[in-house]
Amino acid sequence: MTCKGKVSIIVGSERDLPFSERASKILKENSIEFEIKVLSAHRNPKDLENYISNSDVDVFIAMAGLSAHLPGFIASRTNKPVIGVPLNVSLGGLDSLLSIVQMPKGVPVATVGIDNPENAAHLAVRIISLCRGV
Amino acid sequence: MTCKGKVSIIVGSERDLPFSERASKILKENSIEFEIKVLSAHRNPKDLENYISNSDVDVFIAMAGLSAHLPGFIASRTNKPVIGVPLNVSLGGLDSLLSIVQMPKGVPVATVGIDNPENAAHLAVRIISLCRGV
Amino acid sequence: MTCKGKVSIIVGSERDLPFSERASKILKENSIEFEIKVLSAHRNPKDLENYISNSDVDVFIAMAGLSAHLPGFIASRTNKPVIGVPLNVSLGGLDSLLSIVQMPKGVPVATVGIDNPENAAHLAVRIISLCRGV
Amino acid sequence: MTCKGKVSIIVGSERDLPFSERASKILKENSIEFEIKVLSAHRNPKDLENYISNSDVDVFIAMAGLSAHLPGFIASRTNKPVIGVPLNVSLGGLDSLLSIVQMPKGVPVATVGIDNPENAAHLAVRIISLCRGV
Amino acid sequence: MTCKGKVSIIVGSERDLPFSERASKILKENSIEFEIKVLSAHRNPKDLENYISNSDVDVFIAMAGLSAHLPGFIASRTNKPVIGVPLNVSLGGLDSLLSIVQMPKGVPVATVGIDNPENAAHLAVRIISLCRGV
Amino acid sequence: MTCKGKVSIIVGSERDLPFSERASKILKENSIEFEIKVLSAHRNPKDLENYISNSDVDVFIAMAGLSAHLPGFIASRTNKPVIGVPLNVSLGGLDSLLSIVQMPKGVPVATVGIDNPENAAHLAVRIISLCRGV
Amino acid sequence: MTCKGKVSIIVGSERDLPFSERASKILKENSIEFEIKVLSAHRNPKDLENYISNSDVDVFIAMAGLSAHLPGFIASRTNKPVIGVPLNVSLGGLDSLLSIVQMPKGVPVATVGIDNPENAAHLAVRIISLCRGV
Amino acid sequence: MTCKGKVSIIVGSERDLPFSERASKILKENSIEFEIKVLSAHRNPKDLENYISNSDVDVFIAMAGLSAHLPGFIASRTNKPVIGVPLNVSLGGLDSLLSIVQMPKGVPVATVGIDNPENAAHLAVRIISLCRGV
Repeated sequence: MTCKGKVSIIVGSERDLPFSERASKILKENSIEFEIKVLSAHRNPKDLENYISNSDVDVFIAMAGLSAHLPGFIASRTNKPVIGVPLNVSLGGLDSLLSIVQMPKGVPVATVGIDNPENAAHLAVRIISLCRGV
Repeated sequence: MTCKGKVSIIVGSERDLPFSERASKILKENSIEFEIKVLSAHRNPKDLENYISNSDVDVFIAMAGLSAHLPGFIASRTNKPVIGVPLNVSLGGLDSLLSIVQMPKGVPVATVGIDNPENAAHLAVRIISLCRGV
Repeated sequence: MTCKGKVSIIVGSERDLPFSERASKILKENSIEFEIKVLSAHRNPKDLENYISNSDVDVFIAMAGLSAHLPGFIASRTNKPVIGVPLNVSLGGLDSLLSIVQMPKGVPVATVGIDNPENAAHLAVRIISLCRGV
Repeated sequence: MTCKGKVSIIVGSERDLPFSERASKILKENSIEFEIKVLSAHRNPKDLENYISNSDVDVFIAMAGLSAHLPGFIASRTNKPVIGVPLNVSLGGLDSLLSIVQMPKGVPVATVGIDNPENAAHLAVRIISLCRGV
Repeated sequence: MTCKGKVSIIVGSERDLPFSERASKILKENSIEFEIKVLSAHRNPKDLENYISNSDVDVFIAMAGLSAHLPGFIASRTNKPVIGVPLNVSLGGLDSLLSIVQMPKGVPVATVGIDNPENAAHLAVRIISLCRGV
Repeated sequence: MTCKGKVSIIVGSERDLPFSERASKILKENSIEFEIKVLSAHRNPKDLENYISNSDVDVFIAMAGLSAHLPGFIASRTNKPVIGVPLNVSLGGLDSLLSIVQMPKGVPVATVGIDNPENAAHLAVRIISLCRGV
Repeated sequence: MTCKGKVSIIVGSERDLPFSERASKILKENSIEFEIKVLSAHRNPKDLENYISNSDVDVFIAMAGLSAHLPGFIASRTNKPVIGVPLNVSLGGLDSLLSIVQMPKGVPVATVGIDNPENAAHLAVRIISLCRGV
Repeated sequence: MTCKGKVSIIVGSERDLPFSERASKILKENSIEFEIKVLSAHRNPKDLENYISNSDVDVFIAMAGLSAHLPGFIASRTNKPVIGVPLNVSLGGLDSLLSIVQMPKGVPVATVGIDNPENAAHLAVRIISLCRGV
């Protein structure tokens, strides 16, 4: 596992793409390579699994609303750090926050604030900087 | 897909087995066949997937606390009805309730009350009775 | 009790009819027969009771906001599966979610997400498919 | 409809009888006649309906936990004042509070505090005093 | 204390007058006399006290948002039934609901739903009908 | 209005006296004079009013649970700073927190944390130190 | 520490300046001197520390949304009274309310209502009046 | 900034040390060096600042209850990844969760579940593994 300085941003549906762009803007400003994917833990589980196992990124950022299982799904299939962004679709985003942050022991998701993809990117920058030795 | 009159009860960890027994007691009283499995969506995703695809049950009952992804995981890999039971491990069970009930469109989980596996069994009885034509 | 492949969608007031149509659209796509009724547990309890006892549907879908007693009312008067849809009229829909999902033991309501009639229909499709042996 | 100075206290299950006694103690101290019934809106709807229509009391007090439909059920079948007491069985009683207080327009329930049957009795005393012209 | 068939509707500020009119409309339809007052428990406590002690109404309806102390203030200074209407100014109205309904033992407020002055009026109609012997 | 360096601690019932002692201990350690009173805004409003208008203290500390109106009541009858301590009697203390902190404009209560009378005392020490010119 | 009759209003970002103006308007009406600063506990901690230690104001008012650490930061670096105003940016302001009011023992923040800078100013007026001996 | 493979665990008070040990146990099992410090953002801000600036660790884990400012304080003074663990002292830990996770843009805290220091350690292991190239 060598640090490539690359981040994957995954959203569960096309509706959430604008949030991914708010994250990628910050990665760009920090010269970090990234790719954006639309893959749902519930609608494309096989594609998502294949993508995760073949991916060479260092950090995953996953964003989802409602019963937001996407970040936890990724965290259970990789040993890389996974950052979760709860999105406010219902109940002010409390449902997605709790669905993402309250993970069982052994499968951590690094959760940031509701509708705050910028902080997911800033956190990824900190992790990548560390592994790059910058 | 013929109705076999059989239910699968899945819990994410051994800690939750007593809840599964409260459900199975009611299935027994209604002469419905069942099996109980301990399989975690986060720790044994592959085993869980295999179990689901090879299973011949009519209805799945899944119980979990915290970021409770187990019922939704099952619902995304089968076309059978899936019943979710939120368990109170933290926050009065509000985290697991929202993680289970707020599923995205197309992947429904039939959610019952917090720490109420009995109602999951009663709901399964209603569904099985319907398909058996009793 | 033979499976007729028919669903009843009940809303408590005319205001909620648009939600019933989002459910019926999905039933239509799956070639499932349905009927839509406006009957309130609080304003027309007798009519509602008569409708339930004379109905030959396999599954009831009931939608309501606020102190949402409609799904539980139906579940206490039929042995068929009852699916409840909490609607957001106040407090983000938390009041209707809790009024529907926290039913006492023995009277289960299969609850789906807030303002998510589509998932009620998808769940009904799964139950009907099972009893039809499709 | 003449004022008889009589109150009915209804609980949904035997488990809740101690709460009814805390209310009846205050009615006794105020020399108000009362009767206590165990009748569930979900398990004995017919018996409950019969009881309500044949009752000659002036005020109903109903107590319930979880998805607490009992007070609203009574309010939809009588024109007498109905007082609801939310009981804490789950979630600190927030579920029962919201199930009781957020009634639709036209079917009011006079709701008092969580686990506070004393205030239901005190409120009944105020209403009875008014109608008795004391 | 004889039943006059009269209701007082009190709001804490002019901003809340539209809510009082939704209540008074229903009282009018039921031929119940009423008066509307703007009196704040925090800004005009003396005027409010004087009004309450000199009033000959049978029932008080009080509406307030935020830390809604108005209904409880009235209930502590009269033996007549007091109905409280929580208004949504902040937090979906949860603050005013809890400020009104969770009264200490001995000082009951008959609480109705958030932003639901209609039900306050309907409840007043039930109480007045009882005391009038209609 | 000269600064006397004196604090009044008011609780609504004897049950809450232990909380007042946790505050007074800190005032003692800071050599600030205090008196403790048991006076309820709902049960002794007249006595409470008299006490407030005749009092020569600089700062009031008031503690209450449930629909906690005591601090706001005092703030509406004095121009001195009033500190409110929400006590957890129900719902984790969320009801008393919101009843105390969400005061209408013009009648401020300086609210501290749930079950944290120590911070009320520490805040009083800061205010008294300022007015004493220490 | 002599009373200068001066207040500092600090906001964490320029976005929150309109709230500071609602507070300063009330200070002006009460002829209390004030200054407004934009200083973030997270982005300018050093500047904020310097400002606090060199300041000669009597009372600090700090406003912030989300994880609102600004008021607590100031309270931990001064012995003057600190007033905190939670702003609603997310979750109705519940996040900022709890971040401000639930301070550990020894570091009190005098918290006022969500989006209620007016009450922060009114509270400051009360404290300044006391120390000025007005 | 080279990866040393070292983690710092900081708790705000001695009361929270048992939680730090649950995290350190997992770091030990993964052969990751660590140190544990008791330093409060509110009571020892200067010591905490000094510790952070002189530290050579790769990742900070910070745990706190109530208005939990510790993780955000650290995140605002280092460019290293900071992991926050909300502890349940009040309100089921909802106050600390929101105080930690809802950080403003630019100052991210990688938040894990309430009372779940194990997941903080597991997340640190993932980050360290990445930077070590294991």
